[in-house]
Amino acid sequence: MTEPGPRAYAALLERTAALADLRGIGALLWWDQGTMMPVAGAQSRAHQFATLERIAHAQLTDPEMGRLLDAADPWAATLDPDARERRMVAEIRRDVEKAVRVPAELAAEIAHAAALGEHAWTEARAANDFGRFRDALARQIELRHRYAACFPDAAHPYDVLLDDFEPGLTVAELRPLFEALRNGLVPIVAGAVRGGDGDGAGPLDGQFPADAQRAFVTAMLEAHGFDSAAWRLDPTIHPFAQGIGVGDTRLTTHYDESTLDMALYSCLHEFGHGLYEAGIDPEIARTPLGGTTSLGVHESQSRLWENLVGRSRPFCEWIAPRLASAFPEALGGLTPERLYVDGTRVRPSLIRIQADESTYNLHVVLRTDLEMRLFSGTLTVDELPDAWDAGMHELLGVEVPDAVRGVLQDIHWGAGLIGYFPTYSIGNLMSAQIWEALNRDVPDVEERISRGDSEALRHWLRERVHRHGRTFPPRELLRRVTGEELSVEPFLRYLRGKLADAGHLGA
Amino acid sequence: MTEPGPRAYAALLERTAALADLRGIGALLWWDQGTMMPVAGAQSRAHQFATLERIAHAQLTDPEMGRLLDAADPWAATLDPDARERRMVAEIRRDVEKAVRVPAELAAEIAHAAALGEHAWTEARAANDFGRFRDALARQIELRHRYAACFPDAAHPYDVLLDDFEPGLTVAELRPLFEALRNGLVPIVAGAVRGGDGDGAGPLDGQFPADAQRAFVTAMLEAHGFDSAAWRLDPTIHPFAQGIGVGDTRLTTHYDESTLDMALYSCLHEFGHGLYEAGIDPEIARTPLGGTTSLGVHESQSRLWENLVGRSRPFCEWIAPRLASAFPEALGGLTPERLYVDGTRVRPSLIRIQADESTYNLHVVLRTDLEMRLFSGTLTVDELPDAWDAGMHELLGVEVPDAVRGVLQDIHWGAGLIGYFPTYSIGNLMSAQIWEALNRDVPDVEERISRGDSEALRHWLRERVHRHGRTFPPRELLRRVTGEELSVEPFLRYLRGKLADAGHLGA
Repeated sequence: MTEPGPRAYAALLERTAALADLRGIGALLWWDQGTMMPVAGAQSRAHQFATLERIAHAQLTDPEMGRLLDAADPWAATLDPDARERRMVAEIRRDVEKAVRVPAELAAEIAHAAALGEHAWTEARAANDFGRFRDALARQIELRHRYAACFPDAAHPYDVLLDDFEPGLTVAELRPLFEALRNGLVPIVAGAVRGGDGDGAGPLDGQFPADAQRAFVTAMLEAHGFDSAAWRLDPTIHPFAQGIGVGDTRLTTHYDESTLDMALYSCLHEFGHGLYEAGIDPEIARTPLGGTTSLGVHESQSRLWENLVGRSRPFCEWIAPRLASAFPEALGGLTPERLYVDGTRVRPSLIRIQADESTYNLHVVLRTDLEMRLFSGTLTVDELPDAWDAGMHELLGVEVPDAVRGVLQDIHWGAGLIGYFPTYSIGNLMSAQIWEALNRDVPDVEERISRGDSEALRHWLRERVHRHGRTFPPRELLRRVTGEELSVEPFLRYLRGKLADAGHLGA
Repeated sequence: MTEPGPRAYAALLERTAALADLRGIGALLWWDQGTMMPVAGAQSRAHQFATLERIAHAQLTDPEMGRLLDAADPWAATLDPDARERRMVAEIRRDVEKAVRVPAELAAEIAHAAALGEHAWTEARAANDFGRFRDALARQIELRHRYAACFPDAAHPYDVLLDDFEPGLTVAELRPLFEALRNGLVPIVAGAVRGGDGDGAGPLDGQFPADAQRAFVTAMLEAHGFDSAAWRLDPTIHPFAQGIGVGDTRLTTHYDESTLDMALYSCLHEFGHGLYEAGIDPEIARTPLGGTTSLGVHESQSRLWENLVGRSRPFCEWIAPRLASAFPEALGGLTPERLYVDGTRVRPSLIRIQADESTYNLHVVLRTDLEMRLFSGTLTVDELPDAWDAGMHELLGVEVPDAVRGVLQDIHWGAGLIGYFPTYSIGNLMSAQIWEALNRDVPDVEERISRGDSEALRHWLRERVHRHGRTFPPRELLRRVTGEELSVEPFLRYLRGKLADAGHLGA
C-alpha cells in the first residue's frame, strides 16, 4: 500500500463508496416518494433529490478524482484484464469522464427541463392534447443534442444517449437488430389466432380485495425466496423495484381490485429486478462494480420472471391450483391450461405496458424508430402524432383514438429519457438467450418450476448473472453467460414455440 | 444584490439550503430505519448515515463558509437586531464555529464510539450486567471531555454539552433550577395518596387489536388537525416524530395489544412534536432558521399535548365517551372521571419512560446529577450503579432490583448523549409556563378542548411558538411567549392544582 498506484486505488474506492451510499440514499428517496410520502411533501422532495444529485456530481467531477485515476492507471494496466481492481478503475474512469464532459450548467438545465417536461406531459395527458406537450418535447430534443455534442467522438450522436442506459450499444448495431425483430414479429402477430374468451373477461378477472391479493402474492414470492428480513413489498400506482443497500430490496405492486392479473405479473416482474439487485456479490457493495450493468440486463431479469417463468406452462401448473384454493369463489374452476392459454394470447392493443409478449416489442420498435427520427431531424415534433398513429396501424393494425392512448401514453420523453425505450426490447431478447443457456445447464428447470421449486434457477441466475454487478459491460456479460452475441432468433424461436404450444398459431 | 454583504448572504443561503436538504434526508433515513427498513439492511444504512454526516460536516466547515460569513457580518450588523437576515447570519456563524472547532478525527471517533457504545449497551442490557457497559461508558466520558476541551471559553465544560441540545443553557443556571425542582417535587410525591384501582388494572387495559387502535388514534388525531395529505402515522417499537420537509411530517406509535394507554398518549406526545415541525413558517424552510430551536422547546410541545391537554379533565371529557363507543366491550363503562383520576395518579416507579407526571422529573434530576458528577470526576463509572440505586431510593423511595430496571434502562449514555437528559425536564417546565400564557390569551381553551376543539390552541401555538423555528434562541423564545424566565413554579403550581383536583393529595 505504499506504492502510488495501490494508494490511489484505495483513495478512489473510499470516494466511490460515498457515491454508492448516495445512490442508495437516492433509491430510498425514490421508493419513499412512490409508496409512503404524503402528497404535500413533493416540493421538499424535489429539493432533496436536486441536492443529492448536485453533491454526487460534484464529487464525481472533483479534479482529485482525475488525478487519482491517472495515478492508478499505470498500476491497473499491469494487472490481469479480468482482475477486479482493473475493472474497478475502468468503471470509475468511465463514470468520471462522462460526468466531466457535461458542463454543470447543462446538467442543471437538463435536470430542470426534466421536471418541467414531466409536468407538461402530465398536463397534456389530463387535457388529452399533444399540443400542450410539444414545446416541452422540442426542448428535450434540443437539450439531448447539446448533451450528445459533449461527446464528439461518438460515431452517431444517438449512441451517446444509448450509452447512458445500455453501455456500448450503438445505432450501427441497433438498427439491423430491431429491423430483424420487426420483420420476425409482424408475421407472427399477423398470423396468430385472434379473439379471447368470448365475454372478454380474463381468467384472473373478478373481485379481489387488496388485502387478499397482498397475502396471495406475498406467499407466492416467499415460496421463491422473498424473505421479509431483507425484502419489502408495498403498494404503489406504477410498480417498480429498488435496491436500497445490502439486505434491503424493495418491490412495489398495484392492487387492482377487479383483477389479479396486475398484482400477480407485476410482482413476478419486479421480483426479477429485485433478485438482480439482491444477488450482487456483497463483496463489491459500495464499489463502482456494486451496481447493475445496464437497463437491458435488468429488464432481462424482470421479463424472465414475468414471462419465461410466470407465463410458462409449468408455472401455471404450480400457481393455478393455489389461485383456485385461495379464491374459491372467483377462481374455483381455474385450470392451468386456461391460465396458460390466455396468458399467451396475441392481442394487438394500444398501450405498451398492457401489451402481451408477442406484440410488446413492436411498441418498442415504433418508439425507437420515432425517437431516432426526431433526434436526427427527419421527423418534426409536430409530425410526431400522425407518425405514431400510422406506425401503430402499420405494425399492429390498431387505430389510435386519441393522444392519451397514443403518443402521450409514456412519461419517458417528457422526462428527457430518449434512448431508454430500446432497452426494454434488448432485455426481452436477452431474456430468451439467457433462458436457452439456463436450460442447457439445468435441463430439469421447467419440471422444477412446475413443483414451485425455483432454487436451481435462482442459484444459476445469481452465479452467472447477478453476482457480477457491473463487473462486465452488458454485452460481455451476455457473451459469458450464453456464449452468444445479442440476437433476435432465440426470442422469436421462444415465441413461435410458445404460441404453437398454446394453440394460437393459425392452421 | 451587488453589494458584497448581500451577495455573501445569498451565497450562504444557497449553501445552507443544501444543508437543510441533507437534514431532511437524514430524517427520512432515520424514520425509515425505525418503521420500514428490513432488519438485514442495518449495515448499509449505517454507511449511508455516516456518509451523509461526513458530507454535511465537510460543507459546514468548508473555508468558503468562513469567508462568506466574514463578508456578510458587517452588513448584517447594520440591520435591525430582529431582522431575519441578521438572525440567519448569527445562526450560520454559530453552526460553523461549533463545527470547525472539532477536529475531523475527533468527530469520527465520536461517531464510531456512539455505534460501539450503543452496541455495548444493548449487550449489557441483554445480559443485565452493567460490567459489560462500563468501558464503553468510560470511553464516552473521555470523548466528551475531549469534545468540551475544543471550546475552552465555556464557563464550565458541561456547558458545552448542554449547548448542543439546549443552546445557551449553563450549569450555573441548571443547578439551582433542578435543586428547586427537586425540593418542590419530593414533598409532593411523598405526600400524595398511593395505590391504584385495587386490582392493578388501569382504565385502558384490556384486549385491543392493533388495527382497531390505529383506527381510533388516527381519528383522534384527525379531529385535531392531522391530515393524511401532509402527515403519516406508522407503528414502531419506540415512538418518535420526524419532520422530513414542508408538507411531510411523520409520527410513529406503538400498539401494545394489552392496553390503549401506550398508543393513546404516545400519539398525543408525538403529535405535539409533529405540530412544532409542521408549524414552522414555510418561508424559512431550507434556511438555517427552518429547524427547531432546542430539544427543551420541542419537548415542551410534546408534553403539552400529552399531559396538559391529553391528561386534563376537559380532554378526558371529550375522549372517554369516544373510547367507550369505539370499544364497548372493554371500555363501555369508562367515565371521564375515572380516566382523569387514574391518569393523574402518583406512582413512584423504576422506569423513566413509564413514569407519571409527578415523578417523571425526579428521574431526570437523578440522571442529570449523576452525569454531572461523572463528567466532573466526583463519581467514578464503577460507583455509578450504587449511586443510581441510592438516588432512586432517596428521591422516589423505590428499590432497584437489577441493572435493566436501573442504570441500564436508557440508551443515551451509551450513544454519548451526555447533557441531553436535562432537556426533558426543561421541556416540562416550559410546557407549564406556556400553558399559563396560553390560558391568559385564550381563556376558554379548556372549555374548547372539552368539545374536542383545539383550533384556537393550535393557532396560538403556531403563531407564538412554532412558526419562528430557530429564529429565537430557546430562552428568548420563552421570554417572548410568556414574558418570563425559565422557572419551576408554574410547573409545581400546575401539578399541585391537578393532584388536588383529582383527589390525590393527602388530607
